[in-house]
Amino acid sequence: METVQSGKRDGEGINLRSDNEAPVAPEILAAIEAANRGPAASYGDDAFSQRLQQTFRTLFETDLTVFPVLTGTAANALSVAQLAPPYGAVFCHEHAHMNTDECGAPEFFSGGAKLVLLGGAHGRIDADALVRALEALEAHDDHQVKPAALSLSQSTECGTVYDLEEIRQLTALARESKLRVHMDGARLANAVQRLRCSPADATWRAGVDLLSFGATKNGALAAEAVVVFDRDLAEELGRRRKRAGHLLSKMRYVSAQLEAYVADDLWLRLAGRANGAAAKLAEGLQAIDGVELAHPVEANEIFAHMPPALAEGLEKAGVAFLPWTGARDLYRLVASYSTSDEALGHVLEHAARLAREAG
Amino acid sequence: METVQSGKRDGEGINLRSDNEAPVAPEILAAIEAANRGPAASYGDDAFSQRLQQTFRTLFETDLTVFPVLTGTAANALSVAQLAPPYGAVFCHEHAHMNTDECGAPEFFSGGAKLVLLGGAHGRIDADALVRALEALEAHDDHQVKPAALSLSQSTECGTVYDLEEIRQLTALARESKLRVHMDGARLANAVQRLRCSPADATWRAGVDLLSFGATKNGALAAEAVVVFDRDLAEELGRRRKRAGHLLSKMRYVSAQLEAYVADDLWLRLAGRANGAAAKLAEGLQAIDGVELAHPVEANEIFAHMPPALAEGLEKAGVAFLPWTGARDLYRLVASYSTSDEALGHVLEHAARLAREAG
Amino acid sequence: METVQSGKRDGEGINLRSDNEAPVAPEILAAIEAANRGPAASYGDDAFSQRLQQTFRTLFETDLTVFPVLTGTAANALSVAQLAPPYGAVFCHEHAHMNTDECGAPEFFSGGAKLVLLGGAHGRIDADALVRALEALEAHDDHQVKPAALSLSQSTECGTVYDLEEIRQLTALARESKLRVHMDGARLANAVQRLRCSPADATWRAGVDLLSFGATKNGALAAEAVVVFDRDLAEELGRRRKRAGHLLSKMRYVSAQLEAYVADDLWLRLAGRANGAAAKLAEGLQAIDGVELAHPVEANEIFAHMPPALAEGLEKAGVAFLPWTGARDLYRLVASYSTSDEALGHVLEHAARLAREAG
Amino acid sequence: METVQSGKRDGEGINLRSDNEAPVAPEILAAIEAANRGPAASYGDDAFSQRLQQTFRTLFETDLTVFPVLTGTAANALSVAQLAPPYGAVFCHEHAHMNTDECGAPEFFSGGAKLVLLGGAHGRIDADALVRALEALEAHDDHQVKPAALSLSQSTECGTVYDLEEIRQLTALARESKLRVHMDGARLANAVQRLRCSPADATWRAGVDLLSFGATKNGALAAEAVVVFDRDLAEELGRRRKRAGHLLSKMRYVSAQLEAYVADDLWLRLAGRANGAAAKLAEGLQAIDGVELAHPVEANEIFAHMPPALAEGLEKAGVAFLPWTGARDLYRLVASYSTSDEALGHVLEHAARLAREAG
Repeated sequence: METVQSGKRDGEGINLRSDNEAPVAPEILAAIEAANRGPAASYGDDAFSQRLQQTFRTLFETDLTVFPVLTGTAANALSVAQLAPPYGAVFCHEHAHMNTDECGAPEFFSGGAKLVLLGGAHGRIDADALVRALEALEAHDDHQVKPAALSLSQSTECGTVYDLEEIRQLTALARESKLRVHMDGARLANAVQRLRCSPADATWRAGVDLLSFGATKNGALAAEAVVVFDRDLAEELGRRRKRAGHLLSKMRYVSAQLEAYVADDLWLRLAGRANGAAAKLAEGLQAIDGVELAHPVEANEIFAHMPPALAEGLEKAGVAFLPWTGARDLYRLVASYSTSDEALGHVLEHAARLAREAG
Repeated sequence: METVQSGKRDGEGINLRSDNEAPVAPEILAAIEAANRGPAASYGDDAFSQRLQQTFRTLFETDLTVFPVLTGTAANALSVAQLAPPYGAVFCHEHAHMNTDECGAPEFFSGGAKLVLLGGAHGRIDADALVRALEALEAHDDHQVKPAALSLSQSTECGTVYDLEEIRQLTALARESKLRVHMDGARLANAVQRLRCSPADATWRAGVDLLSFGATKNGALAAEAVVVFDRDLAEELGRRRKRAGHLLSKMRYVSAQLEAYVADDLWLRLAGRANGAAAKLAEGLQAIDGVELAHPVEANEIFAHMPPALAEGLEKAGVAFLPWTGARDLYRLVASYSTSDEALGHVLEHAARLAREAG
Repeated sequence: METVQSGKRDGEGINLRSDNEAPVAPEILAAIEAANRGPAASYGDDAFSQRLQQTFRTLFETDLTVFPVLTGTAANALSVAQLAPPYGAVFCHEHAHMNTDECGAPEFFSGGAKLVLLGGAHGRIDADALVRALEALEAHDDHQVKPAALSLSQSTECGTVYDLEEIRQLTALARESKLRVHMDGARLANAVQRLRCSPADATWRAGVDLLSFGATKNGALAAEAVVVFDRDLAEELGRRRKRAGHLLSKMRYVSAQLEAYVADDLWLRLAGRANGAAAKLAEGLQAIDGVELAHPVEANEIFAHMPPALAEGLEKAGVAFLPWTGARDLYRLVASYSTSDEALGHVLEHAARLAREAG
Repeated sequence: METVQSGKRDGEGINLRSDNEAPVAPEILAAIEAANRGPAASYGDDAFSQRLQQTFRTLFETDLTVFPVLTGTAANALSVAQLAPPYGAVFCHEHAHMNTDECGAPEFFSGGAKLVLLGGAHGRIDADALVRALEALEAHDDHQVKPAALSLSQSTECGTVYDLEEIRQLTALARESKLRVHMDGARLANAVQRLRCSPADATWRAGVDLLSFGATKNGALAAEAVVVFDRDLAEELGRRRKRAGHLLSKMRYVSAQLEAYVADDLWLRLAGRANGAAAKLAEGLQAIDGVELAHPVEANEIFAHMPPALAEGLEKAGVAFLPWTGARDLYRLVASYSTSDEALGHVLEHAARLAREAG
């Protein structure tokens, strides 16, 4: 019974619940299979993992160190721990995933650093809010936590994308106050594809010191990485990773995923499909009476207000998506690399029919 | 260039360095592939993960909760955090993996609990040492950490296996002092195969409350689990797992590995091959002049003193294994499910030839 | 040189900078001296500390356990650690001392629990804000921290006092969501004196589980305490205290202070002097042109907007007080038990003269 | 009732239970009283605390930073946190107070660093044991904690004193492996008095980087300090202290104690009385049949094996001392600055009589 029910939930219908629910891209599964020939050194001493360093240096056009891990939460929390002492403050958006959805992982990994929450429209940190928050801690005396880092999500938790100038403005403010800069790039591919810039321009050239590089939401099985652009900041990150249980013994299978993910721009092609599907879906939904986008759709996520009848009707028609917190009748629909044109057509067709029936 | 060099290191010759260096067993890789059909709910709400609860209940013949994670370090450290408060003490063997090889993960996850190290021959905790250590903390006053848990490794870090009576004796002592019991079962399969008992007899029926269930060293890609036999002890372990970055978004691929691993006793068949290979290798090595086993070979690991010339000769002949700390001329050779009879033949042939040449 | 300068800063003029800068009340110093006769058992096994349990039970008219500590930060952070697991959330006012002035001590002691910040006028938590914050975490799933405790400051950081009905309303909301309740009573005496209620009514009868009981700001040398009204919540608090370095070896000198502090209502008499001085000062300042109170003055702190010329003039005249963050031309003036009528007269006289000169 | 009983326990008879049970030395109580004139700046900005920096620089003949705290546990744990990262190892004697009597405070403050326990006769770390322990961790790879610091107790937990050459040998070994060195000087006065060297010679000139400077066991009310000889190591120790609740608001009363403690060599005179009393007592006890010293008596503590009848007889005669763990019929007797010749005479007289009666 359970199997059937779960099977229904898992596989049938059209899944716009999360890009995390998409299967593994064929190219990446093939890379795992290809890595499975004979024994290989463990804990990252294998050829795949060694080679990955150079692959990422080429991709980002700079010296760097890459630490593969298994989840985005691990990448973010290790980054925070590396940048902020236990008595430090990390500035992030109030809707940042690390604040709302990681069960306190940044506090855990850092030994109790404080996330200082900033406002800002559509998931982008407001520069003035950062300035004010820094001023409030500027006395820098022993009664207050020490400003240590700024964390930006790109693309943001509202499905928007900072343009490069916005990033540079925020990182310059951070730099003035001696903060280091982390970017949560769980959906970096979607942002880079949107910006049509180089990965280097999107990150270290814009002032980013440490990057959570995500692949899982965009077609990998389980492959994320902390990318460290400043050699000093890589010190002992390996021990922190081990200590957190994120040094995989058979690391080659993670490294192989990452290698395949960036080879021949696969990551950007996958993100292009997801972004394109989201754009098309957003355009179609907007045309429907009563639907209003809560945020501009700049990556692969749509946040939309919909009449309850429409939302319920779509769900009954097998379209799966999530109600969202923070407002009434707000829903999130996420496209992935595997969202087909056919599926989009069905969704929009259903939506149009439901709107007509309600009208 | 790098590829070729690394390729040599990774793939050529005969690998007795670690069971972690073996590839993924075909049955398990096939299960990953089979799980890759269409979307599935994320974060463990998928059908594979839901089904796994029942699979493990059947396997262990009792009610339990299973929390898949990615590494043995994570399984151990989460277990310690679940059993010991920050002001608690966990008793373990001085050679326990959690003490020597996890970079302080138990201390990290528990918020600073103390590992109290016990001696004991061949990796087995000496019962008297446990009694004495408990007495030393028995005042239980505020100046001392609070005895909270006992952790046993099965099979042990010396390649030996506790028999059931030994386990029961230690867990009974623990119980008298109100300690909970953890078993580090990174190589549980090897122990159960050796003991020819049921998984239930090897664990909860012998007094184990929480189990680190390992699969990676025995053919999985990356699949471990915390198995909780006492429902109360499962409380909020899910939050601890998430907070540590070990709640995989695409959990189905871990659950599918575990499902395949225990289906049709695959885990015991794989362990049988590894144990058998180790026994055969140990027997052969023992017959060679100058070789002495440091510990009885009861699972898939051999710890042997060897004349330096023999060790070097084997290495030159392409047999890879590790020098071991703690004594001169001590080496570890590990068999895995993938160690072939042919490989064993080569090793023993080389060894015999080298001994003759030296003799 | 340094001595003279510091001497000037320390002793001369009229000190309205902080009640922490007042000397020790004579009755309390006398109690320390009286405790200094011969040896006494250490670490709280002395007669003073044993007796203190009963003294506080009588004072609060209930069974309780009292844990003397040395600072308010320790009392607060130990309370948070006792109420919230590392994966927990503690709800408090955004201006709560534990959030703004304790350098992350609650996060440190709890192993990384998260403070969820609530708004509310004049330092009092807004009940609706609490409801909304609870709703945002109500899914209670593993991705979010677990709502664990509510912390109230009484008197508040804005110098106001919750009335009993307000306390009861907030603690009832907390109770509905299974939160435990902490009260930061660094200035509890000022609140109880204002409310003219019993200590029991102000705390456990209004729904408080754990109390940071302050004495240092109101005449003690260094004496605070965690008062635990629910026996279960006292478990292992002793170990947490020791582990944090707050179990004093010569505890009798802290217990003696606390005993003297509450004997014959000394604490309320001292608070009465401080509150009275603040009320008188506030009344006088309000009458001066350009002065505006930022918050009602209900305890011993005044937050007032003052024309810069007035503030500077007072400072030149030897009246010491602090500019306050968060707004322009905002200042804090704090009265203590040792603020004399003569000093108040001088301050108001200077202020009136300065206003006349400016007018 | 309780008062009388506790009074008996606290005050009557001859107290050799702990130097912690002695009252405050008159000179130090007088300093507290003298500090109680008028208001003073809080949190260490007062004249006493400012002046203390120079006082300690003069005392130790070098540049340094002194951070007063309230307990020895806090001084030790802050020191460990300052020297060792969460993934670090601190080498100390297996009997070190920080390992056996501080309820895991070093692990707590450091975020989970590991104490690596070393053997050594009479409480002194064996240099070979240190070398071996360093070798075991020398691979320095990510699987192991990183060697970070060596901690020495002076005088030791066995009542012995390292001579300067022993200290220098251990700190030189530490330096070779890039460890920093901490000295737990809870009883530093007793050691310096014994060695008849300068405080500088006993500490930084012998290779010590960070010192827990104790005063409470030698006549203070509650006054300890972290003394930092290397300016770089002082960075953010202030925030760590605040975050642990050890930044006293009325810090002047701690600083005044420390100032009086070292003025005119009071600390050495007090230690001289304690050491002298212990030497005299040890000499007398040794002459009694059946008494055997477990360790040389070099400071103010005596560890002696005594026939049970003798121990019981002394206790009945009102001499209070403690049974000690680790061996049968082992007792600890501690002299303090306040142990009188008369008291010693009584103890030895009783002991001689009891021995005669038993003989």
